[in-house]
Amino acid sequence: MDLKALKEEVYEANLALVRLGLVLLTWGNASGIDRERGLVVIKPSGVDYDVMTPEDMVVVNLDSGEVVEGGLRPSTDTPTHLELYRNFRNIGGAVHTHSTYAVAWAQAQRDIPIIGTTSADYFYKPVPCCRQLTSDEIFTDYEHAVGEVIVETFRERNLDPNSTPAALARNHGPFCWGKSPMDAAHIAAVLEESAKLVFLTESLNSQLPMDQNLIEKHYQRKHGANAYYGQK
Amino acid sequence: MDLKALKEEVYEANLALVRLGLVLLTWGNASGIDRERGLVVIKPSGVDYDVMTPEDMVVVNLDSGEVVEGGLRPSTDTPTHLELYRNFRNIGGAVHTHSTYAVAWAQAQRDIPIIGTTSADYFYKPVPCCRQLTSDEIFTDYEHAVGEVIVETFRERNLDPNSTPAALARNHGPFCWGKSPMDAAHIAAVLEESAKLVFLTESLNSQLPMDQNLIEKHYQRKHGANAYYGQK
Amino acid sequence: MDLKALKEEVYEANLALVRLGLVLLTWGNASGIDRERGLVVIKPSGVDYDVMTPEDMVVVNLDSGEVVEGGLRPSTDTPTHLELYRNFRNIGGAVHTHSTYAVAWAQAQRDIPIIGTTSADYFYKPVPCCRQLTSDEIFTDYEHAVGEVIVETFRERNLDPNSTPAALARNHGPFCWGKSPMDAAHIAAVLEESAKLVFLTESLNSQLPMDQNLIEKHYQRKHGANAYYGQK
Amino acid sequence: MDLKALKEEVYEANLALVRLGLVLLTWGNASGIDRERGLVVIKPSGVDYDVMTPEDMVVVNLDSGEVVEGGLRPSTDTPTHLELYRNFRNIGGAVHTHSTYAVAWAQAQRDIPIIGTTSADYFYKPVPCCRQLTSDEIFTDYEHAVGEVIVETFRERNLDPNSTPAALARNHGPFCWGKSPMDAAHIAAVLEESAKLVFLTESLNSQLPMDQNLIEKHYQRKHGANAYYGQK
Repeated sequence: MDLKALKEEVYEANLALVRLGLVLLTWGNASGIDRERGLVVIKPSGVDYDVMTPEDMVVVNLDSGEVVEGGLRPSTDTPTHLELYRNFRNIGGAVHTHSTYAVAWAQAQRDIPIIGTTSADYFYKPVPCCRQLTSDEIFTDYEHAVGEVIVETFRERNLDPNSTPAALARNHGPFCWGKSPMDAAHIAAVLEESAKLVFLTESLNSQLPMDQNLIEKHYQRKHGANAYYGQK
Repeated sequence: MDLKALKEEVYEANLALVRLGLVLLTWGNASGIDRERGLVVIKPSGVDYDVMTPEDMVVVNLDSGEVVEGGLRPSTDTPTHLELYRNFRNIGGAVHTHSTYAVAWAQAQRDIPIIGTTSADYFYKPVPCCRQLTSDEIFTDYEHAVGEVIVETFRERNLDPNSTPAALARNHGPFCWGKSPMDAAHIAAVLEESAKLVFLTESLNSQLPMDQNLIEKHYQRKHGANAYYGQK
Repeated sequence: MDLKALKEEVYEANLALVRLGLVLLTWGNASGIDRERGLVVIKPSGVDYDVMTPEDMVVVNLDSGEVVEGGLRPSTDTPTHLELYRNFRNIGGAVHTHSTYAVAWAQAQRDIPIIGTTSADYFYKPVPCCRQLTSDEIFTDYEHAVGEVIVETFRERNLDPNSTPAALARNHGPFCWGKSPMDAAHIAAVLEESAKLVFLTESLNSQLPMDQNLIEKHYQRKHGANAYYGQK
Repeated sequence: MDLKALKEEVYEANLALVRLGLVLLTWGNASGIDRERGLVVIKPSGVDYDVMTPEDMVVVNLDSGEVVEGGLRPSTDTPTHLELYRNFRNIGGAVHTHSTYAVAWAQAQRDIPIIGTTSADYFYKPVPCCRQLTSDEIFTDYEHAVGEVIVETFRERNLDPNSTPAALARNHGPFCWGKSPMDAAHIAAVLEESAKLVFLTESLNSQLPMDQNLIEKHYQRKHGANAYYGQK
């Protein structure tokens, strides 16, 4: 089994979270999936970023959640990541952070609206804040329930996880995903900046809806069939 | 054709945007113009700042917008830059950023008032927030329309682009310009700081108008016929 | 007497305060205790962090407060630290900072509520803001009184200092403690982030209470008998 | 004339302003005085901090304001510094910055109240915001008038410049002073932090007055006849 490249990618995505200013202490984790083998690679729990190596990344089974490689415990949030991978079939990476402004929105129990092109470049719809967990969900299989309620939110609101790649766990914080571990880390940075921008905007003006056409344009020029942002 | 010096200048201005804290990921671009040859040099689209070299800068024709040198796609915002160069005849550089506080004002759909010498040193009049684009403007030739509406705003409000060197594209973000690419990058930093300062001031006090004489004095001591700020 | 290892630990915790962004100029101090010998090691008063060495740490007697080793004056806040060590018998380290958001709450004379898992991971109950000192307490033995009123607050509110390891000295700032000097420094960082998060949350929403079960879950998964966060 | 040591001190204080995060671009200047010779050393106008050398510092005559040594123009704010030195006879250094939160208070046209020990450690009374200048003051000898109105404010409000070592020029920004150039730079950092702290506190609570005894205690333990903060 050679997951060396994926371990390296997951390791780099974890370091990117730190470099992008999204992590305090050891709060944050990134993972990646090898869909052919049904294996997920994820950060070990509570390990300092500056002593961590690519080899410390833990390999778990997508279906069972069992550790299949690695001497350390996987992130406590592993069951959440697995639930996302099982239900959002196109994603290749996922991250969880406690980035400041995104957490503030989660604590305020509010969706993050899209009122600027900065957000519309990455999020087609408002980033949803999930419902409160029941006490049964909290005390039985907590981290798995966090994932389930994200999936439930996307299903019930008819949201496409590919075009709105993030959710807020209520009173907790953001989970983001993308095509790769590094893509998910970048989404986490955009979410944090979007959360800050809307926070500031609300102070300057009662929040005005943004022209839907401009959202459409910005999202499509970056991600649509005829996207022309970036290099080919 | 030797545009080496201008490419270097544009490259340095792009890096300055990062160093001044105005850029997240690859969001931001600086350009410069060679008016004699009618050529504009601009950052390539979506390229990471830390791998970018001066040679990666793309040369486009001022009138046609066609790429005349460089192997990469120019910034998606190139048509906006070109429209500014065509209409604001004294400017030598232009930049676009998504700097946080300036974007918040753009999202709040408000002009940034001048209520302190920090802003008056660089902006003679409030920095205007442009009108909403029509759906036709958005879906036909979007980036060109962004430039057109900035030019329209300055014409209709009778603003001098030389003494108020910035505008906010509504629900999007700031465009700034100056005598050179680096000058435009510095203007972008001043705009961001001004946007933050007014944001904070509004929280401390219902916004008080500033004495117009003090604006006059500060703008003139830096840019007037008898300016005495800096070295000769 | 060989307190070399403890001096090194206290030195490192003081530097961590700077690295974690909790200190301006020389405002902040960390200490550690050797309970067997009844000795406390603490930062010298008003010394710059970048010239300070482990040998500069001052050793004082837990009971008398007298300096027993070291050529420099101990931190002016030493009597506060000693009072905490005398009453909170399980703690091994203590720190005081003027970190921005925690001080803002102290100046606002308010407890910091727990409304997110980021805080609940470390604080089981709201972080209390202590009562105002009497003029007698201020002018007689001020720094000792600061410690006494913290202890009084925990006793009167029936708070456990082990599960809520911080307090705000009113109109002054935070004191934090933990199992070791470095643990206390980390608690100070979490407190600052929690203070900022609740500050931001209040702007976004009239403050909503958090589900008590989620606090329970998060605190216990990190500190309870069956904790599973981090490595064994 | 050997002012080498003072030039070095002034140079270091100017760099400290940058390091303390108080300066954007070239906005900020520090000076120092040699009272025996009646000479003031100050930063040159509009010079980049990273190319500046101690030899670039400009020497001016305290009384006449004439440049007596140095090949560069002195800071445009030199007449303000001179007016402070002429009237505040115990000060050895002065600085001017456009630090963000202090400027916000100046733009809000409000004094900065003392509501915490962080501020009381350095400022015995609220930091005053000066009156608006007359148009005559603005257009005749502006920078001198800025100094005059600071001195007027201290005289009219019966403030001691030694125990409240800063003022806000209305709609402009802070001027600070101290025993030495570096001391003045530190005061500027404390003023900025105080300005931010009160800003945040006001959001958390309608501003509560602080116990005057605690101000007394903190100011005196650091600056009084029996001060015991720091090393002897």
